[in-house]
Amino acid sequence: MVEVGVFGATGYAGRELVRILSVHPQARAAFTTGTGEGHLAHEAGLERKADAYFLSLPHGISATYAARLREAHPFAVVVDLSGDLRLPTAASYREWYGHDHPAPALLGQAPYGLTELYRDEVRSARLISNPGCYATSVLLPLIPLVRGKLIDADDVVVDAKSGTTGAGRAPREDLLFSEVADDFSAYAPGRVHRHVGEMEAAVREKAGRDVRLTFCPHLLPVRRGILSALYLKTDKGADALRAALRSAYEGATFVRVVEKAPPRLSDVVHTNECRMSVHDAAPGRVVVFSALDNLVKGAAGQAVQNLNLALGLPEDAGLGSRRA
Amino acid sequence: MVEVGVFGATGYAGRELVRILSVHPQARAAFTTGTGEGHLAHEAGLERKADAYFLSLPHGISATYAARLREAHPFAVVVDLSGDLRLPTAASYREWYGHDHPAPALLGQAPYGLTELYRDEVRSARLISNPGCYATSVLLPLIPLVRGKLIDADDVVVDAKSGTTGAGRAPREDLLFSEVADDFSAYAPGRVHRHVGEMEAAVREKAGRDVRLTFCPHLLPVRRGILSALYLKTDKGADALRAALRSAYEGATFVRVVEKAPPRLSDVVHTNECRMSVHDAAPGRVVVFSALDNLVKGAAGQAVQNLNLALGLPEDAGLGSRRA
Amino acid sequence: MVEVGVFGATGYAGRELVRILSVHPQARAAFTTGTGEGHLAHEAGLERKADAYFLSLPHGISATYAARLREAHPFAVVVDLSGDLRLPTAASYREWYGHDHPAPALLGQAPYGLTELYRDEVRSARLISNPGCYATSVLLPLIPLVRGKLIDADDVVVDAKSGTTGAGRAPREDLLFSEVADDFSAYAPGRVHRHVGEMEAAVREKAGRDVRLTFCPHLLPVRRGILSALYLKTDKGADALRAALRSAYEGATFVRVVEKAPPRLSDVVHTNECRMSVHDAAPGRVVVFSALDNLVKGAAGQAVQNLNLALGLPEDAGLGSRRA
Amino acid sequence: MVEVGVFGATGYAGRELVRILSVHPQARAAFTTGTGEGHLAHEAGLERKADAYFLSLPHGISATYAARLREAHPFAVVVDLSGDLRLPTAASYREWYGHDHPAPALLGQAPYGLTELYRDEVRSARLISNPGCYATSVLLPLIPLVRGKLIDADDVVVDAKSGTTGAGRAPREDLLFSEVADDFSAYAPGRVHRHVGEMEAAVREKAGRDVRLTFCPHLLPVRRGILSALYLKTDKGADALRAALRSAYEGATFVRVVEKAPPRLSDVVHTNECRMSVHDAAPGRVVVFSALDNLVKGAAGQAVQNLNLALGLPEDAGLGSRRA
Repeated sequence: MVEVGVFGATGYAGRELVRILSVHPQARAAFTTGTGEGHLAHEAGLERKADAYFLSLPHGISATYAARLREAHPFAVVVDLSGDLRLPTAASYREWYGHDHPAPALLGQAPYGLTELYRDEVRSARLISNPGCYATSVLLPLIPLVRGKLIDADDVVVDAKSGTTGAGRAPREDLLFSEVADDFSAYAPGRVHRHVGEMEAAVREKAGRDVRLTFCPHLLPVRRGILSALYLKTDKGADALRAALRSAYEGATFVRVVEKAPPRLSDVVHTNECRMSVHDAAPGRVVVFSALDNLVKGAAGQAVQNLNLALGLPEDAGLGSRRA
Repeated sequence: MVEVGVFGATGYAGRELVRILSVHPQARAAFTTGTGEGHLAHEAGLERKADAYFLSLPHGISATYAARLREAHPFAVVVDLSGDLRLPTAASYREWYGHDHPAPALLGQAPYGLTELYRDEVRSARLISNPGCYATSVLLPLIPLVRGKLIDADDVVVDAKSGTTGAGRAPREDLLFSEVADDFSAYAPGRVHRHVGEMEAAVREKAGRDVRLTFCPHLLPVRRGILSALYLKTDKGADALRAALRSAYEGATFVRVVEKAPPRLSDVVHTNECRMSVHDAAPGRVVVFSALDNLVKGAAGQAVQNLNLALGLPEDAGLGSRRA
Repeated sequence: MVEVGVFGATGYAGRELVRILSVHPQARAAFTTGTGEGHLAHEAGLERKADAYFLSLPHGISATYAARLREAHPFAVVVDLSGDLRLPTAASYREWYGHDHPAPALLGQAPYGLTELYRDEVRSARLISNPGCYATSVLLPLIPLVRGKLIDADDVVVDAKSGTTGAGRAPREDLLFSEVADDFSAYAPGRVHRHVGEMEAAVREKAGRDVRLTFCPHLLPVRRGILSALYLKTDKGADALRAALRSAYEGATFVRVVEKAPPRLSDVVHTNECRMSVHDAAPGRVVVFSALDNLVKGAAGQAVQNLNLALGLPEDAGLGSRRA
Repeated sequence: MVEVGVFGATGYAGRELVRILSVHPQARAAFTTGTGEGHLAHEAGLERKADAYFLSLPHGISATYAARLREAHPFAVVVDLSGDLRLPTAASYREWYGHDHPAPALLGQAPYGLTELYRDEVRSARLISNPGCYATSVLLPLIPLVRGKLIDADDVVVDAKSGTTGAGRAPREDLLFSEVADDFSAYAPGRVHRHVGEMEAAVREKAGRDVRLTFCPHLLPVRRGILSALYLKTDKGADALRAALRSAYEGATFVRVVEKAPPRLSDVVHTNECRMSVHDAAPGRVVVFSALDNLVKGAAGQAVQNLNLALGLPEDAGLGSRRA
């Protein structure tokens, strides 16, 4: 049994990590840190030896724990779910996060754990940077299409909608039920959201292309799930793009390209699946929909998927069948 | 007091018409048709003389009532809230609605009641075609920008989200609370939704340009409200487009262009306002958000606004803000 | 025009006060205090002369402002929406609120503004204690029935359900959308909620009887509205109790006893109405349902109703129905 | 592998049956009937031999299928999830369902599958009547307390709240999202709901007492879950009742009596657990809260639990751990 320490087990992603580990056949939570009964203080967690650690801590803090865990337990696998290790350089980190990187020595050491596209890198890694939820929903369809030169990378428009758990569990007035219910709103429009930097860096790294992203996230009055619409410029039709995505994810357990109706949140919540569809639009335009659960494939599920790979376990261990 | 007959008063738009008329200082519902106690049968309504009639009936039926009302009461104002009179030709109607037009003789007779942009036409009309809810949210920002040659009309991407009352009150499994709650989905993606035809026709008529629209509507788990995001190609920036929209709607009571945060549904529901914002995105791209209440500015409110104009009443009579 | 100062204008009840004043034909907000742009600090508000003041401040603080306003502006009307002045003695206040009363000299000076049952007291008052939202929904049906000796006061069971705005706007984890949505829960069961003390005191005062209340509030995943079910022991039937309630509220604008289907939240939200129904149950048991909007009849609306009375204005000024 | 036929697999309970069978280690769906692709017609299902059958069909129809299955496949286990076999006599069935019983010969043959209290009867049964969802939530706490003479059976008040899936999947205007969202309402108050008859019959059978129930169900704007509040008259306190319930369910996997905070829907949805708490109220009154998932412990989960017992499988097979 693989012993896993979970830092930050009381947030939404942390709780999902604990839930997955509780049904994982080959791994279990050895300890958890967080506030409230039954959890260690984060500091105390650093002293506990384990085979692997998940860091579900705020950015700016998470990387300092990653650094100390690397030092104290060099053979353990560390998966950082924060944004701290997702950008390639300290300069880009400062640009998108607005403060200095807390552990710049780690930059470049952690492969980006977008599992299906970084399998080889993840397999041999001891430190893994888990992607953002929006980024996962966008990059899984986008990277293969850019890499295959099937779309115009200079004009990628993404309209994304997320449930509220993506914003975390810390009390905020704008996230109160009284504020969110029966409402819907866009935020951080254009090129403001931190995931823009992360997505452009990943496309550059994996597809060798600069991409120019327009990205508008929205807050849905639901708890879980992301549905992204990618408006892509292309002289190929939907059929060609769909075929390319199918080929890219042939054999992938957790990515599914469906034929007709766009995926909806209820198709994917509480599962580790990213589900996509491809549709013709105006001449020269194709729309790709991509849906996932922000806490599973967009966070804890993908983190476990990465851990499984890094430990040589079956990739889907603990991530088994979705709810019907 | 203007006496108004309301056909189809039991649907969501019809109920909103009745509500507005109940607070209208110069008009009132003389009779209503629909199912249930207190309503006339539609046929019986045809025999009732009134100063004006609202038709909130299903497409394919509505225009036959419009034709009969025109004949029986030639001096009355008729506002048709269905889609029957929104397309310019019988051929385009058949293309988008899948059946023959029920009263082709009326085509071309009813101005398109997108009030702020068709004021002169509406003022002198006896028959008015009330725009669709999505179409209103898209055309109010789009037409001035196309007309001003500020954007590339060949590549307009619209991602729109609507509450469930837009789909009407007839029982349907896919609109049950158990199906819609906690979920979110796209439908009719690309160029399938009927409002695509309506929107392209209106831009052609008012801006003298063919526009190529990619339009993806979504169903929100809320009852009221539409938020549309327009992704526009332009070599001008957000400031120029915002200024153009402000200038286009200077003095308009019910269109408001805000500066910073995108409008949200709660800003506009239960009001007749369409609220917009303009934001820079990737180079060459600007995003415009447009929010309204699908039952008010997107249906009943705009219908009353049109009636007010046609009758020479103050444009905002009965439409005073219901919210603080 | 009556000039009104609103203390605490940024909470949900405070915002509703401001909204009502904005449509009130004979009163208007002269100033508001609260956090954020456009509001005075609470201290600064004390120095502003006005004809009336609303206090929508936290309990424990509100009464100190009431005392200072009484001293500084002895002829002004002060309506306190907090719980500070609802209990008869400092001892009972300490029992239910867990701390000493902040201004015990005021106790006994402010009539309990359950308007329909305290009209005479309110008319001549300069200081008014506005009832709690749950308490209003329960006492409007309960007091006339106890007073008329129609029910057994020793065994009154109330199962109440409230929307989230009743819990206020201060950020709390348990009120996040992610926590409340798609969920439902009871809290403070039995005799724990503060409104128990307030309700028992009011029945004693107005009906001259000790009542023994079992009270279980619940948190609904909706923003507004309270629906209370009162399970009453009686040897009279529903018809007799319904007749008694009708008689008690004959001529009352804002209390309505309906015949058949129990009132639902959507019947009353955004209005100042309390709507009730009475139904037979098991032998010896009758059920009364009582619905209102916690922010209107349960707070700001009733506060304005009280102010109207105290100022000699029409009782319903500014409270005209917002809904069709 | 036990082969199971599922009649009515497209409703909410039927889909949940299929989901549970899909993860059941010792049983699987051999065929399903219903509307839509991949399902047999109900008639065709009668000819398919299987080890067990679930009937998730409308009342009035279900028992005719039960009768025909008993005849055609006398050794198979049949679990009827409808209300057809829950009442003891044809007369009581007609009283509560308003029409004649479709297969009166079956009455008295099917034990009431409230599993924890009818284990012995279920073990040896070939025909099982699965309890109603509200009834399960009420009877699990109520029967042991009546049997133990711990409460006054003449005055039992139940205020129950259910999610919308309890009302089924057939399109109905009053169940549209646009009607249910942001609202809350009581229905069938007093002694009108069919489960009243079922509950009183079960208490009589299992506790040997006539009970007089006041029962008010409510419709919650959530999809799943029931929370019932039982207001019980007793001269014992909460501690004694809690101890009695704990003792009654010692060792039961799917019933849990918690200490402090009342159970909430999110504690039990997507699980087969019924969770209860007991609280003191006014003198002589104790409140019991009981929560479950109406589609799992209130329908499909309990049906599988019953099937497991009848087939000699582990009682919890396929019903494993709840979602964290």
